[in-house]
Amino acid sequence: MAEQVSGPEIQRLIQLLARLPGLGPRSARRAALHLIRKREELLGPLSDAMQVARERIVTCSSCGNVDTSDPCVICRDERRDPAVLIVVETVADLWALERAAALRARYHVLGGTLSPLDGIGPKDLNLASLVERVATGGVGEVILAVNATVDGQTTAHYVTDLLSHLDVRITRLAHGVPVGGELDYLDDGTLSAAIRQRTDF
Amino acid sequence: MAEQVSGPEIQRLIQLLARLPGLGPRSARRAALHLIRKREELLGPLSDAMQVARERIVTCSSCGNVDTSDPCVICRDERRDPAVLIVVETVADLWALERAAALRARYHVLGGTLSPLDGIGPKDLNLASLVERVATGGVGEVILAVNATVDGQTTAHYVTDLLSHLDVRITRLAHGVPVGGELDYLDDGTLSAAIRQRTDF
Repeated sequence: MAEQVSGPEIQRLIQLLARLPGLGPRSARRAALHLIRKREELLGPLSDAMQVARERIVTCSSCGNVDTSDPCVICRDERRDPAVLIVVETVADLWALERAAALRARYHVLGGTLSPLDGIGPKDLNLASLVERVATGGVGEVILAVNATVDGQTTAHYVTDLLSHLDVRITRLAHGVPVGGELDYLDDGTLSAAIRQRTDF
Repeated sequence: MAEQVSGPEIQRLIQLLARLPGLGPRSARRAALHLIRKREELLGPLSDAMQVARERIVTCSSCGNVDTSDPCVICRDERRDPAVLIVVETVADLWALERAAALRARYHVLGGTLSPLDGIGPKDLNLASLVERVATGGVGEVILAVNATVDGQTTAHYVTDLLSHLDVRITRLAHGVPVGGELDYLDDGTLSAAIRQRTDF
């Protein structure tokens, strides 16, 4: 039925937009109409930006970040502390930590977590390159910035084992009350962790 | 700060994606990473579909629908009743009515509603072409399928006045209880309309 409204080209645009996370069929239709209405200001530039991304974005062979250069801007940045390596699951996590600007260090993107149920084993993650980066020296501390989920913690333990024969300090993110968080809404695990790891005031 | 993570090309992609309705800064980042991860399956095809849309989509000079041909598929469809013209505010409304497949008629897209507060007057809507379509004959009924909002109803009254000197029946959508709707959750206006316009069972 829908094909009769406006030709297959628009339908295809809608179908592809609907595959973006956060957009369903209805919002994809709205997005497509918005794009068509704003052809000069949005459809053109976005289409160009996608072409650029498609042709030029590569995965950094060192850390696994995505950028238009390899090594990426972070690996090339000489003002960053080369002795600290922050291990993250995904590029999204890397970006989140950079937004927080907590530490000017380098990163290593695992590309996921160990998850036997989903068939994701050690071979599927960037673990060999992590061991190599740490082993070839200069790294004094590895911060395991993985998600506080079962899979994330399993992966953290696995990485710790992998690196145990190397002379490197391994740390992990603190658990506790999120800034701005209300105790009444927090789960028991977070509250116990926050009590156990309390700090001097 | 964010520019340091991954070069200006990805930032630009994120900024443009964030201008789509339904995507905020965070979901635009997720969408961009998703696109980069699925370069072959999604980024490429979507980028191509946008190029096609950019180059080929036109506004139908007869009804105001968007399509890759002018007149659009609906105006070209000879199986549709040429005597019935459904007046809608936007192309999205046209698509919604087509999805409902309630009536195989032709459409006329006004391109908005009269809204003095937003500076939208009769000149900004496709009203002259509507009068011309009705005046040149063949149209026996104009269905005002505008939104049940103040602006929509103002526009409906204005259109009725415009067409009053022509020999055409003017109708509007029924008000009432939405299918599947629960009375307890409906506003008073809808409930009174549903009572007033009750039908035989």
